[in-house]
This record gives sequence, C-alpha cells and structure tokens, in this order.
Amino acid sequence: MKQEILEVFDNTYPDRDYTIEIVNPEFTSVCPKTGLPDFGTITVSYIPDKTCIELKSLKYYFLEFRNAGIFYENVTNRILDDLVAVSSPRSMTVRTEWKARGGITETVTVSHNASA
Amino acid sequence: MKQEILEVFDNTYPDRDYTIEIVNPEFTSVCPKTGLPDFGTITVSYIPDKTCIELKSLKYYFLEFRNAGIFYENVTNRILDDLVAVSSPRSMTVRTEWKARGGITETVTVSHNASA
Amino acid sequence: MKQEILEVFDNTYPDRDYTIEIVNPEFTSVCPKTGLPDFGTITVSYIPDKTCIELKSLKYYFLEFRNAGIFYENVTNRILDDLVAVSSPRSMTVRTEWKARGGITETVTVSHNASA
Amino acid sequence: MKQEILEVFDNTYPDRDYTIEIVNPEFTSVCPKTGLPDFGTITVSYIPDKTCIELKSLKYYFLEFRNAGIFYENVTNRILDDLVAVSSPRSMTVRTEWKARGGITETVTVSHNASA
Amino acid sequence: MKQEILEVFDNTYPDRDYTIEIVNPEFTSVCPKTGLPDFGTITVSYIPDKTCIELKSLKYYFLEFRNAGIFYENVTNRILDDLVAVSSPRSMTVRTEWKARGGITETVTVSHNASA
Amino acid sequence: MKQEILEVFDNTYPDRDYTIEIVNPEFTSVCPKTGLPDFGTITVSYIPDKTCIELKSLKYYFLEFRNAGIFYENVTNRILDDLVAVSSPRSMTVRTEWKARGGITETVTVSHNASA
Amino acid sequence: MKQEILEVFDNTYPDRDYTIEIVNPEFTSVCPKTGLPDFGTITVSYIPDKTCIELKSLKYYFLEFRNAGIFYENVTNRILDDLVAVSSPRSMTVRTEWKARGGITETVTVSHNASA
Amino acid sequence: MKQEILEVFDNTYPDRDYTIEIVNPEFTSVCPKTGLPDFGTITVSYIPDKTCIELKSLKYYFLEFRNAGIFYENVTNRILDDLVAVSSPRSMTVRTEWKARGGITETVTVSHNASA
Amino acid sequence: MKQEILEVFDNTYPDRDYTIEIVNPEFTSVCPKTGLPDFGTITVSYIPDKTCIELKSLKYYFLEFRNAGIFYENVTNRILDDLVAVSSPRSMTVRTEWKARGGITETVTVSHNASA
Amino acid sequence: MKQEILEVFDNTYPDRDYTIEIVNPEFTSVCPKTGLPDFGTITVSYIPDKTCIELKSLKYYFLEFRNAGIFYENVTNRILDDLVAVSSPRSMTVRTEWKARGGITETVTVSHNASA
Repeated sequence: MKQEILEVFDNTYPDRDYTIEIVNPEFTSVCPKTGLPDFGTITVSYIPDKTCIELKSLKYYFLEFRNAGIFYENVTNRILDDLVAVSSPRSMTVRTEWKARGGITETVTVSHNASA
Repeated sequence: MKQEILEVFDNTYPDRDYTIEIVNPEFTSVCPKTGLPDFGTITVSYIPDKTCIELKSLKYYFLEFRNAGIFYENVTNRILDDLVAVSSPRSMTVRTEWKARGGITETVTVSHNASA
Repeated sequence: MKQEILEVFDNTYPDRDYTIEIVNPEFTSVCPKTGLPDFGTITVSYIPDKTCIELKSLKYYFLEFRNAGIFYENVTNRILDDLVAVSSPRSMTVRTEWKARGGITETVTVSHNASA
Repeated sequence: MKQEILEVFDNTYPDRDYTIEIVNPEFTSVCPKTGLPDFGTITVSYIPDKTCIELKSLKYYFLEFRNAGIFYENVTNRILDDLVAVSSPRSMTVRTEWKARGGITETVTVSHNASA
Repeated sequence: MKQEILEVFDNTYPDRDYTIEIVNPEFTSVCPKTGLPDFGTITVSYIPDKTCIELKSLKYYFLEFRNAGIFYENVTNRILDDLVAVSSPRSMTVRTEWKARGGITETVTVSHNASA
Repeated sequence: MKQEILEVFDNTYPDRDYTIEIVNPEFTSVCPKTGLPDFGTITVSYIPDKTCIELKSLKYYFLEFRNAGIFYENVTNRILDDLVAVSSPRSMTVRTEWKARGGITETVTVSHNASA
Repeated sequence: MKQEILEVFDNTYPDRDYTIEIVNPEFTSVCPKTGLPDFGTITVSYIPDKTCIELKSLKYYFLEFRNAGIFYENVTNRILDDLVAVSSPRSMTVRTEWKARGGITETVTVSHNASA
Repeated sequence: MKQEILEVFDNTYPDRDYTIEIVNPEFTSVCPKTGLPDFGTITVSYIPDKTCIELKSLKYYFLEFRNAGIFYENVTNRILDDLVAVSSPRSMTVRTEWKARGGITETVTVSHNASA
Repeated sequence: MKQEILEVFDNTYPDRDYTIEIVNPEFTSVCPKTGLPDFGTITVSYIPDKTCIELKSLKYYFLEFRNAGIFYENVTNRILDDLVAVSSPRSMTVRTEWKARGGITETVTVSHNASA
Repeated sequence: MKQEILEVFDNTYPDRDYTIEIVNPEFTSVCPKTGLPDFGTITVSYIPDKTCIELKSLKYYFLEFRNAGIFYENVTNRILDDLVAVSSPRSMTVRTEWKARGGITETVTVSHNASA
C-alpha cells in the first residue's frame, strides 16, 4: 500500500552519476508502545539509475506514516526498502533524526548500494 | 533556443587551469506537476578551456526558465549540458538547491569532466 | 470534548501575580482546504488566578488537533478560549507560528485579559 | 482582476483584537524600466475585523505579480489597497524588502488604520 | 549637472505617509586632499510627497561621484540637497558610513523636514 | 537489577550494518564522595546485530542511577557493559559529558567492538 | 603644539544641525607611571558650527600622543579641549575605551555643549 | 604602464620559504559590456623569491583599474601575470570575489608555480 | 606536598582503553617576576591504566598553586609530572591557556605517553 | 641591541617536546615609506629546547619596534631570527597579521626548524 503511492519518472540523464538529496523536517509517526506521536527529520540522498523519485508522491508517501505505530529503526529501514524498490537507485542513504522523548533523542542512518 | 542566448568570449589565458565559480540565488522556474513557481540557488563552477561564459548572457539564459515547467533534476542536467555545449570547459559542476515545497527541500549536484 | 481533556490544579500562591510560559514546538493539525498537515509552534503565556493548567493534560489536549481540519486563526483563538474557560487566568496570550506552505509563513497572536 | 483572486473567510472571533503576520520571502515581479525580474520579501501584518485573508488565495494573488511590470513603491501600496479592500482590517502594515539591483537595495513600508 | 541625472516618477499614493529606505553599499568618491578613493555605504530614508525617486537614475547619480574630489561632510549634505530638490519629500535622512582611512572611520548623518 | 530493566526488540533488518545514536542530556547520579548530585549528557552510538535497545526501557534504566553514588568513570563503563550484555551490538561507544563541579568539568569516552 | 597640527575647513552647510562621528581604533599613548604603551579606541561625535575637522590632520594629531606619557582621563579631556578650541562645535562628545591592563579595562566619556 | 607602477624591494630573507597574503576588499573596475562599475575583493598569496612586492605601489597599481573596462577573468589573470612579472615569486595565487550584478556573483581563482 | 594531596581510585575497567578529559577554567597562580596573579584554563586529557584521578582531590591540588610563584611552562609540566606520578596513565596531555598580561597571551601544551 | 633585551630561562623539562604559543595583539611599528604607524597581531609558536623565552622581556623586546621604520616582511623574519638566536628552539613559527592601510591588509608567516 504505502509503496504504491510512490511515483517515479524517467531519469532523462542516465549516463551520468549525479546526486539528489531530499530533506523533510516535518515527518511524524506514532510510537507503537505509547501511542503518542513522534516527530523527526528525514534525509534521503541517492544517485538515480533509470528513474527519479517524484517529490509530490514522496510527500504523500511520508504522510502515510502519520498515524502508523512504528519504531524509529523500522521507519528508517522501511523507507529505504520502499524507495529502493520503486526507484532502483545506484546507491541511497536514509537518515532519521528524532525529537526528544522523555528527554532522549535518537538518530538512525542506513544505506543501500546497488553494486555491493 | 535557450542555449542560443548564451555567449562566450575567448579565454585570454588558455595555458592555465583556473577556476570560475558563479552563484545565482534568484533562480526561478515552474513545477511541471502543479504549475506553481519553484525558487532555487544555482552554483556553476568550472575550469575554462578556450572560452569563458559571458555573465550577462548567462543571466538572460537563466531568465528563460522563469516560465518553463521542468523538474529539478532536469533543470540541473539541462544547464550543465547547455553550458558544456557552448563553452567546452575542461570540467564543470552544477548544483541546484531548492526552497521547501510541502515542507520538503531538494538539492541536485551534477558534474562533467572533459578528460573523463 | 477537547476542552474536557484539560485538567487544572489549585494555584498554591494566588496572592501573587506570576507568569507561566509553555512552548510546544511539535503541534500539528490539518489544513481544511487541502487536507494536508500543518506544523507549528504554540506558545502559551499566562498569569494564573485560582488554578494552573496541568501539563500532561495539555499535551493530550494539543494531540486532539492532530487530525482536525482547522484554520490557523481558529486554532489560535480556540486554544485561548479553551484554556481561559478551564483555568480563568488573570491574563493569557497564545501565539502560533506556522511552518511555510507554498513558501509563505504565518504567525497569529491573541490575548485575553480578565480585567479588561 | 488580481484583487478578485483573494478570498476571505469569516473571522470567528471578531470580538477580539488579535494580530496575524504573514511573510512571503519568494515574491517576484518585473522592473517596468528594464523588464528584468525583481525579487523581494513581503511582510503583511494586520488585525482582522469581520474577515480573515485565506492564505492559499493570497499565494495565488502574489503569483499574479510574477510577470507584471511595476515599481517597488506601487507594489507595496497596491498590495495594501487590495488586501484592505477585500478584508477591511482594523489596521494593516505591508513591508517589502527588495534584493540588490545595481548594488542598491530598497525597503518600502506602508500602513492603513481603519480608525484613523 | 549631477542633479539633472536624477529622475522622479509620480507618487501614485500621495494620500498616505509611507517610508522608503534605499541602501547603497558600493559608493565611492575621491579624497580632495590625497586624490585617493574613498569607499562608503549610503542610506537614504524618506517619506515621499508628490514624487518618488527613480532607482536606476539614482544609481547613475551616485556614479557621478566616482571621480569627484569631495569631503565626507559635503557628499552627505550635497546628496540630501539634490534629492530634496528633485523630489521634495515630506522628510528625508541621509547617512554615510565610510571605510577606514589611516585606521579612522567616519559616519555623517543629516536630515531634512519639510514641515520644520 | 539495573540491567534487568533494559528491554530489546528484534532487529528487523539484521542483514545491514546501520547506525543508531541516542543522546540523553538529562542524566543524573550522585557523587560517592560528597553525596551531591552530578548532571551529565550521555551519548550512546551503536551498530545493532540481532536486537535493538527499546528507548522507553532505556529511559527507566538511566533513572536507576538517580540515587546511586558512583564515579563518572564507572557510570560510563557500567552503561557500556550493561548495554552490550543485553543487546550484543556489532560495536558501541558510550560518552558522558559532566557539568562543572567546583568549576571543573569531565568527559569520559569508552568503546566496545564485537569483532575486536 | 599638538593643537596646531589640527586643521579645519569651512562647514558648507552651517544652516543645519547634523552629526559627524569619527572612530579611531588604533590610538596609542604611554602610561606615565610605568612608561609602557596603552592602546585604545577613540570615538569623537560632534555637531559642527562654522567649521569641520579635517580627517588627515586629525590622524596626525592623534599620532602626537604616540610617545606622550599621559593618564587615560587626561587624554580624553585634552582631546575634547583641543578639538573644541580649533572647531568650536555646537556640541561634542569624546569617548576613549582602553585595552585591558592587569585584566582591567577603562572607558572615559566627556562632553561639551556650546549652548550650555 | 600598469605594471610599471609596481615596485619591489629586496627580500632580505631569500633563504627561507615564507608566505605573504595581501587582501584588498576595496577593488573596483568597470564592466566592458555595460560601462558600469564592478566591486570586488582581491586576495594575493605568494612565496617570495628574490623580491617582495611593495604595498603602497600595489595600492596604486590596483587603482589603475578604477576606470578600466575589463572582464573578471582577465582582471584576475592580468594581476597574476603583472605581479609574477615584477616579483618572480616561487609561487602565487590570486583570487577575486565580485559583488552581485543582476543578482549573480562570481569568484575567479588562478595560480602560478615557478617550479611547475 | 602538592603531589600528596592528589588521590586516585582503582580503575574498575583496566581492560579497556578509554579517555577522560578534565577542564578547569578557574586556575590561578602567581607570576614569579612581578608577584601579580595569573589566570588560566587547564585541560587534562588521559587514558587511565590501573588508577583514575579523584576529582575533588584534583581541585584541592590545583588550589595549592594559588599563592605559588611559578612560570607558565613550569606549571604545565609540573602538573603533568604530578598527575603521571600518582596515576601512571597510559597517556596524558596537559594544556594551559593564560589570560593576557601586558596585552600578551600564552598557551602551553605538553604530553606524556607510557609506551613511548 | 634589540636582541639583547630578550631573556630566557632554563627549560626545566628539556626531555619533552612541548608547544608554547604566544599572541601579542598590540604590536606597533612604523612604515619605512610613509613614517606612519603600523598595527598588527604577532603569534609566536615554538617547541623549546634548552631554554624558554621569558614573557616580560619579550614584551619589552616587542616595544623596541614601536618607533622603528621596518617592512612587514622584515619585522616577521627579524623576530624569528632574534627569537631563534636567543632560545635555539627545536622549531618555531612567527605570523604577523597587519591592520588595513589604504584599505589593504597583509599577513606574513615564516618558520624555522632546527632539524631541517
């Protein structure tokens, strides 16, 4: 479901390696233990292969997490998996930085490399 | 059309490798999906070979995008292609940093190397 | 309903005028025109009279807006009205500062004064 | 025409004086002398009376100036006049700060007071 | 001569008092004692009456001082006099801040008030 | 006892090396020599193997030190040992930065590497 | 002697009250007790009457103190007296701010008002 | 002509490699296309061989460009050539950073190495 | 004497290399030439071996220098020697940064490595 | 003469390589071309061998330049030579940063290495 929201468009310049970085400082999901909302900043950085991720669909994809109960670590890995599945980038890194809960902050960083 | 606006002048000092960096923080184009304007900063950095890019013509070249509907990724690659085509630099990098849309920002970086 | 979530406790020091400022940088509601989420920072500043606002109940009160479609101006006035109704402060100011939408930001400031 | 794009909605809280500040750092119009684009930041601050200005319509209103040739001073006064005409605020101030042209910057500030 | 370069245009909104501030950080003239160039920032702030100062003509007016030998105090008063003569503002202040010469900086501030 | 408070959950993505950083700026324990409270910031950074540390249980684990008399050096090593024992990470670093006592500050950094 | 170094020129605009501020951050004199150099910043602010102080002569005037043994308080008053004597300003303030000696800084401020 | 203004003096310490950096933030020349002035900061960094560049003559050399129409790229290379010609340094880098024109800034960097 | 004030406690975790950094911004001693007080910041960074330095005793150790006449260089080396003698660390660095005297500041940095 | 003012004292810790950095922001000498004073900051960094430079004598040594006419480059090399001659350090770097003259600043950096 969530993954189906994502759209891509043809990379008009597939002969080059170039870098796209997307930052969303307004991500929110729900803590699966307390039911309370979590707030974070998501940074996606990738080198496209045959397709690029369409930004507006990505915004709607991120909105799907608004009422979903999910751990920080799983949000991060899930986003990487979904974005890799629809866009097959040459490489991609997803980093999530979460606002303090109980005074404690967490940052999760995960990468994918097509040639690895 | 757009490319034809660009003017170059002879590089008076072709025997040296030297670096020219040009920054335009007032770039604007139109989103092809929503028809709404996008705003960004464009940084062009290059080592000239036989010609240098004339700045005033570059300003008019950038203005051609003002009412054009085009994706961030294509603007960036297109500018690199056009500038390489008219000036044949030894190397060139174009980076575009876009203001937030739907709370999300994007940065695209692409390079060309004549000897590669 | 929302207002009923709010709890107060007795002000142990009603003989003094003193100031309480509460800041919530993680407020989110929904735009009634687009259905998309809005993000903002809410600052409540007040001089209590007979009661003080209980913080945990205030957190849950703010959460009630998470999926509500409501204009910036109405959120701000509504919060002032609800907080005044349950705590009858000597004076109170509510300010909401909203993240950019379409490149545009908005700040709304509204005050109540019991003696006015 | 431009003015007709603006929409207002009923001020749900007309019994109070409260302040709304709107900032648009992505305004662009065209210089009537050179035909080249101008870039500026517009700040609108007002106390509503019976109606509030709807933000999305305001965004589209600002877009109408994108290809209009108009002096800084007239943009500023025109925006004040249009916003006052559609929303009849108790008071309003419009300030425009323009990016440098020929090394020179300009800021224009104009106010309206219904009771004056 | 210099004054003749200045152009004005009709103030479309003469019924209001509003403020225009113009800053030129790239002013240069010549020291009448040493013949060496001086560099300064000029700030003009005024309330227009029937006319506004046209910015491009003001740029060319400032350029007229590029090779003129003139004291800081006289530049400042001269600019005020010329701008008042061509635009008859309701009030105007001119301030010049000069880069260090021999380690010493100088700032000159002068005002005109039509009603005084 | 303390260690038993800690909970872990299965790492859903054990096939990848990825990094989790947790910061707690509100840690407090007691000086074993003076009986006075110490305040510090604890940063835990690790690459999970089969399990991840559950944040809420970690918060309660940190609270267990509130009334414990223990040296800075021992707090730091003890936390590393406990977190390694319950989560068996591929690698982990714990750093504690302590507020000034008698005008003197201290920082302790300690690491564990499963493959070393 | 020192005073004789100072030159003035006719104030071309004696009909206006306007303000001239001169800052010299490179002033140095000698402590009369230790024979060691002192370093300070001198700020002169005045409204001229019939004459203005010529900056280059002021620079040479300040240089006269380079090897003079004189207390901070006396430097400040002496400069005010000399500048008033040669230029008869409508009002003048001299402030000296001295670099730390033995960890201690001193600032001296003295004013003259012709109409007082 | 310009080059003849430059003076050098014997490097009293030719046996050492040492570095001299000179910064002029008050450089101005004229755009050969528009006839309007350009403003920039010039940084010269070099290791002297048998001679050093005399600063006062360098100031007058820079002043020669005040009314010269010349491209940014040529100013930069010309200065390098002239300074290398008169002082034969072991190595030298010249960088020019130009104030915005039409909203666009440019930086040019060029180096010379005697042993290359 | 001074050294005897220092206390150590057993390093509970001698099997690991870990780093301890201690900063004292309130150190004061006396200049042996002038008898005037010196003020400085002392930073001690070390990897403990069998013992750790007890902080409170270190505070009293630092206080012993309050009325001692000693050069900056000797304070720094003396502290390193004393701390190495009582705690035999695997490595240690001591850095002292001194407030200005006669306008001049000094920083001394010295290291010890047990395996060197 | 100047060099004779400098005093050294025995390095009590010659068995170690350690670093001493001295900063004097109040240096002044005289321009040999104009006779006007120059102001600068001098930074000396060295590893002592058998002797250390006594700070008070260094202050008096620097004062000797107060009325000496000498180029920036020669001041810098001269100080290095004098300090090396009296203290024979294992290595030493002297850097001088000069206040603007005619709008132009200069920085000179020179090093000595006993083992080179």
